[in-house]
Amino acid sequence: MKALVFDNELKLVDNYEKPIPQAGEALVRVTMAGICNTDYEITKGYMGYVGILGHEAVGIVEDVNINCHSEANKQEILRSAQNDTKAEESSNRANFKHPLIGKRVVPEISYGCKDPNCEWCAKKNYRHCPNRHTLGIWRKDGVFAQYFTMPVEVLFEVPDNVPDTQAVFVEPLAAALEINEQLHIKPMDKVVVLGDGKLGLITALALNAQNLNVILVGKHQNKLDIAKAQGVKTSLLNDFPIEKKYDVVVEATGSVNGFETSLALTKPRGVLVLKSTVATGKELNLAPIVIDEITVLGSRCGQFPPALRLLESQKVDFSPLISGIYSIDDAEKAFEKNKEKDTLKVLLKM
Amino acid sequence: MKALVFDNELKLVDNYEKPIPQAGEALVRVTMAGICNTDYEITKGYMGYVGILGHEAVGIVEDVNINCHSEANKQEILRSAQNDTKAEESSNRANFKHPLIGKRVVPEISYGCKDPNCEWCAKKNYRHCPNRHTLGIWRKDGVFAQYFTMPVEVLFEVPDNVPDTQAVFVEPLAAALEINEQLHIKPMDKVVVLGDGKLGLITALALNAQNLNVILVGKHQNKLDIAKAQGVKTSLLNDFPIEKKYDVVVEATGSVNGFETSLALTKPRGVLVLKSTVATGKELNLAPIVIDEITVLGSRCGQFPPALRLLESQKVDFSPLISGIYSIDDAEKAFEKNKEKDTLKVLLKM
Repeated sequence: MKALVFDNELKLVDNYEKPIPQAGEALVRVTMAGICNTDYEITKGYMGYVGILGHEAVGIVEDVNINCHSEANKQEILRSAQNDTKAEESSNRANFKHPLIGKRVVPEISYGCKDPNCEWCAKKNYRHCPNRHTLGIWRKDGVFAQYFTMPVEVLFEVPDNVPDTQAVFVEPLAAALEINEQLHIKPMDKVVVLGDGKLGLITALALNAQNLNVILVGKHQNKLDIAKAQGVKTSLLNDFPIEKKYDVVVEATGSVNGFETSLALTKPRGVLVLKSTVATGKELNLAPIVIDEITVLGSRCGQFPPALRLLESQKVDFSPLISGIYSIDDAEKAFEKNKEKDTLKVLLKM
Repeated sequence: MKALVFDNELKLVDNYEKPIPQAGEALVRVTMAGICNTDYEITKGYMGYVGILGHEAVGIVEDVNINCHSEANKQEILRSAQNDTKAEESSNRANFKHPLIGKRVVPEISYGCKDPNCEWCAKKNYRHCPNRHTLGIWRKDGVFAQYFTMPVEVLFEVPDNVPDTQAVFVEPLAAALEINEQLHIKPMDKVVVLGDGKLGLITALALNAQNLNVILVGKHQNKLDIAKAQGVKTSLLNDFPIEKKYDVVVEATGSVNGFETSLALTKPRGVLVLKSTVATGKELNLAPIVIDEITVLGSRCGQFPPALRLLESQKVDFSPLISGIYSIDDAEKAFEKNKEKDTLKVLLKM
């Protein structure tokens, strides 16, 4: 199959071996995928990853391997197939069609060890499982290919009214909604999202869609206007007074300067939500965190169901964020496009 | 009066003008004071402060100025004197002796603007009032002198069974207990305090006194033994496995390496409590905060009543932390002693 592989360099491969779903896994035919900045970081050496890139995708389930390492797991898969009553008889693969087959799905980014003693897997918080595998980032081939495999428990069906071009945003949208999972943002709280790139726009749109009192602050009027058109308050950074008066500040610039500005906007005892994995490359003074007793809250990925619910409600529209849709055959061009200054989201069509 | 003044250099002055309590203030005769690392930082330029140093003290109230700028404040002072019924008649200063006079007190470090619209003053959280004054640190002469003045609302009476040598620890103890104010540490949580200096020892003793599951980790067996003698679990850093398995890690080393070790000990979704105001002077990679969704909680000073309650209960004993008691006449020597490697707390006797 075709696949975009990173192994010291980025290369489109025509004859990559089509993956075979392991016990409990589904085989998914990718229809659309999204390039994330993490993919770009990986091409610069982040995580030391080698393999097929990509972790944002939507696709159609073509097969499910219901063979399992343990009888318990097998029963679980069959139960998850809502086929409880016939589980016993139908455990022969030949006469059982898993209900996910033919469904349009999005994959969560990580899957866990599922060891019954793993506290993270018990909470379905696979992204913190110490033995996790992460699509296109850590010990698992990614989605920039014609096919990928993932365990069925981390695949989520996409509502019919959500097109591929929106569904492909589910992973970054879930990451934005993770803030609400970690932090109780109250109706009267003043919230700033700093940074008008993809991450900032998606976060501001997501918080605004929940009726929170949010303002998006950035440097690019054209990007701010995307959020403004959907009802988000916006301001250019130059016009925005830097005062310590915001209860919650979401750092979405990924730069040290952005971190420092975020600190300068957070009121004493407020919360600075850190969404960026970029290293600082500059000395940072942490004293303001102590003096103003600020909480810095690291926030990464999120659960998919609330994100899919928000997409289904159509309260957010990510189509203005799409800077280009490229065939997998032009994947290298798509990566070049992704690097351009004004680019937001670049999609790949398989 | 005698006073230890910082004005580009540290100088013991014999004829510093004795302060006159302003409206609502008490005049306190200092009996004992403690040197804090912040004092030392100030002598290196921190906060650009000029004036009498010091913010940890115990002393006897000699006078209270019950004149007030507003009638409301006056009534409040009189009420605070538990003299409600006679407030009207006794508002003539001549025939009214404020009940704090003659009492042994400790001063909170900051006082606020008390503007009725100030949200911080309304919560008695004077240390976050944007117009605050802070003893020996910001716009207010400190306590390394024979006298200081502070508003009566930030003076707290010391229980009789608490000697000066313990009472003088109330400010750092309150700072340690602030962690419990900001964070719900649960009985099953695993807590590490990293760093066996004053801050680490006081914090570990305070958390242990509350029956929390705490271990103090440091580099100095002699310092660790002080906590161990009072029932705290301890470990040398070299013997301590660096694993991401602690729910709460208190960074009390004040060093960048300590911050990085703290991050490496905090489990995913755990809390790193940052107690140090030291600038980093080194590049810091904040990515682990995001990847493991860690909360970094800045924590500074605390309220005094819980600290005084803990001192009164005698569940903690800070006398083994005292490295020396110097007369104010030897204040410069005391500062030299404070700089020595193995020194913990140096006290000044007036």
